[in-house]
Amino acid sequence: MLDALKQSVWEANLQLPEYGLVTFTWGNVSGIDRTRGLVVIKPSGVSYGEMKKEDLVVVDLDGNQVEGDLKPSSDTPTHLFLYRELPAIGGIVHTHSPWATSWAQAGRAIPALGTTHADYFLEEIPCTREMTPSEIQGNYEWETGKVIAESLKEKDPMNVPGVLVHQHAPFCWGKDAQDAVYHAVVLEEVAKMAYHTVALNPGACGMNRDLLDKHFFRKHGSKAYYGQT
Amino acid sequence: MLDALKQSVWEANLQLPEYGLVTFTWGNVSGIDRTRGLVVIKPSGVSYGEMKKEDLVVVDLDGNQVEGDLKPSSDTPTHLFLYRELPAIGGIVHTHSPWATSWAQAGRAIPALGTTHADYFLEEIPCTREMTPSEIQGNYEWETGKVIAESLKEKDPMNVPGVLVHQHAPFCWGKDAQDAVYHAVVLEEVAKMAYHTVALNPGACGMNRDLLDKHFFRKHGSKAYYGQT
Amino acid sequence: MLDALKQSVWEANLQLPEYGLVTFTWGNVSGIDRTRGLVVIKPSGVSYGEMKKEDLVVVDLDGNQVEGDLKPSSDTPTHLFLYRELPAIGGIVHTHSPWATSWAQAGRAIPALGTTHADYFLEEIPCTREMTPSEIQGNYEWETGKVIAESLKEKDPMNVPGVLVHQHAPFCWGKDAQDAVYHAVVLEEVAKMAYHTVALNPGACGMNRDLLDKHFFRKHGSKAYYGQT
Amino acid sequence: MLDALKQSVWEANLQLPEYGLVTFTWGNVSGIDRTRGLVVIKPSGVSYGEMKKEDLVVVDLDGNQVEGDLKPSSDTPTHLFLYRELPAIGGIVHTHSPWATSWAQAGRAIPALGTTHADYFLEEIPCTREMTPSEIQGNYEWETGKVIAESLKEKDPMNVPGVLVHQHAPFCWGKDAQDAVYHAVVLEEVAKMAYHTVALNPGACGMNRDLLDKHFFRKHGSKAYYGQT
Repeated sequence: MLDALKQSVWEANLQLPEYGLVTFTWGNVSGIDRTRGLVVIKPSGVSYGEMKKEDLVVVDLDGNQVEGDLKPSSDTPTHLFLYRELPAIGGIVHTHSPWATSWAQAGRAIPALGTTHADYFLEEIPCTREMTPSEIQGNYEWETGKVIAESLKEKDPMNVPGVLVHQHAPFCWGKDAQDAVYHAVVLEEVAKMAYHTVALNPGACGMNRDLLDKHFFRKHGSKAYYGQT
Repeated sequence: MLDALKQSVWEANLQLPEYGLVTFTWGNVSGIDRTRGLVVIKPSGVSYGEMKKEDLVVVDLDGNQVEGDLKPSSDTPTHLFLYRELPAIGGIVHTHSPWATSWAQAGRAIPALGTTHADYFLEEIPCTREMTPSEIQGNYEWETGKVIAESLKEKDPMNVPGVLVHQHAPFCWGKDAQDAVYHAVVLEEVAKMAYHTVALNPGACGMNRDLLDKHFFRKHGSKAYYGQT
Repeated sequence: MLDALKQSVWEANLQLPEYGLVTFTWGNVSGIDRTRGLVVIKPSGVSYGEMKKEDLVVVDLDGNQVEGDLKPSSDTPTHLFLYRELPAIGGIVHTHSPWATSWAQAGRAIPALGTTHADYFLEEIPCTREMTPSEIQGNYEWETGKVIAESLKEKDPMNVPGVLVHQHAPFCWGKDAQDAVYHAVVLEEVAKMAYHTVALNPGACGMNRDLLDKHFFRKHGSKAYYGQT
Repeated sequence: MLDALKQSVWEANLQLPEYGLVTFTWGNVSGIDRTRGLVVIKPSGVSYGEMKKEDLVVVDLDGNQVEGDLKPSSDTPTHLFLYRELPAIGGIVHTHSPWATSWAQAGRAIPALGTTHADYFLEEIPCTREMTPSEIQGNYEWETGKVIAESLKEKDPMNVPGVLVHQHAPFCWGKDAQDAVYHAVVLEEVAKMAYHTVALNPGACGMNRDLLDKHFFRKHGSKAYYGQT
């Protein structure tokens, strides 16, 4: 069951160390089959080098484990909340990639400062609010999904395909698992360049809005003309 | 037709990931046959790992596609404007290399701060002015070429073989496609060191002019004595 | 004798260059057999590429060399002091990994700024006090162990599995040699992100305490639920 | 003639790209046979990947080319001045390694800030004074050697095995070509960590003198006890 999805999610997980986004087991990717309402996700604490496709875990949107001998990622409830709240997304990735995480630890949204950002994010990249003691001590991972969704403020998640979780690290998403990882790479690169940009120009707080729109819509929407399709 | 040029442009494009100048498809190289007035350029959005030499696109200086099944880079009009305006150049490269892009996002020219810069650039590396709404919403990529040329202020482009486009990223050039990529590598290294130099010495704004001239003309012009020729 | 321990310590030493924690011979790992009171440690000044398992040195807790043709690491007395003072630890590693060393040189403890830190360290990562002239000129490496232990202030060393030695570099430990190296990798990553965090937010001095506890105890102690066990 | 020296200098040159100290041809290593008064040095502008051992050039201490079909490095007069002025040294290396070059461009000596520095340099790493117009326009490379020697202020060059040339880049030396490259690697690592240290602690200007001496003399001189000899 779900063999193609498992293959896709397995490959997407292996891309995390290839792209330098993870140390040890600090990241996980999932993908969803919307028709069946089933999510395939990395098992908890298993190293990428040893993880076989069969080790992936299948859960339903209520968190019931449907397949797999291993426990799913401890971040599974965050993924499930986001799949329920954001019907457009098909894959989610969480990492502690160092540049994005530095912004998250600083509690700062990443302002749109150049066309690299604008090619994929139509807005600044939000940082969630601090969580309350009861959110942290309660169903923590589920509540993490909630503050991520709250930070989107009803924007189209495909226009803002990633968010920084305050004092934690980024979550990204996309139309499938590969697309989510693609956005995680973009976010890390954008975070790195934004760090150096604000050091060179402390007043930099946002780019020309026309230029931002131009670049985003060169690549997205009905008038896109970048690429071969 | 243009087989040697295609080989050269293909190899130059593949150098971009080898030198760490690009993430995904964020860059493109072109080369020109001045006798025929034809430009060979990377197809739009094709990954370097999958791009075959036959995928390269040939366009004339009016932008008419002469050869190739794929669409040319969306930045093709920028390349064409520069080839028309700067008859001395034979190759052009655009990347989002992170250090140069950070300076571009900050809207700052890179001052000449040491001999590494002086070995290849006789001046500071300019940053273009902000583009107007009509330039952005109009023939954007063609107008990008215009502001690049404007930033050169009639200087010899071989003395300033690269420019930062404001809130965007660098364009470099050279006598051919390989030479353009060489300058893109130089620019990235110079941008990195200039960043750290101004952090260590915030007053650093330009090097000794005699030293700059000495190093540039050790490598360029009739009195050059660096290398074997 | 001690063949399994030697294998473990040898592999742990070889992990130092693999994880990018050492230049040349700037690091060493040891492990202890608590039953026998014997420590296996890297020989002094031998490069990782040339070090054979047989080159490892065995010493007792009084510093007497029990096995091996080579001299043990010059830092051996530091290791021995820590094994005597901290009965819970089974492996120790010393490196000059650049991010952690930069904090050590600055004489600053690394504040807990995010969940990556909190997953492994329940407190800030201490920086030892400056050593006195008589400590430096006397039994220097033994005294180094003393100031490390002093910086822990009777805290459980498994809750703070590493310390910065003032104007020097980090020491880390764990339940065995591999676990010590694991913590050295964590420390380096945490040090790097903390550097960038305080640059982005100079006021950042410590994270939400509830969040810190939540993440530490997700991975440690009787209520841990991260991973497969 | 000089076959062993050529082999040594050739290998030392190839170490420059292996250690990440050079981009393109931005560096050169030489070694001297003191008995014969002959220096083996890299040819000018030849890439490391293509350089054969037979391409190395032999010159005497007056700069006369004794062997080799290629032109020697344009920096040869700097090497020759240093060999004449500093009889203790047997190898010299010049690179534009980025961290050391950033300090050189900033015109700042690198203060001794930790034991990594102290293990190899008994003092701060000097930055030469600005050269005069007549020095630059005259026998520039020879004059570069002069300002390097001047910056040592009659100190033992083996206690300060490298110097930053103002607005240019580092030169390092050692007992032979390999030792010189070793010091170039140390300098780059020390420069990187010093950069981050002064960012974390802007008041950091020099380490505990007792600690500096302790570490230097653990590795150097008659009372050294680091390593196997």
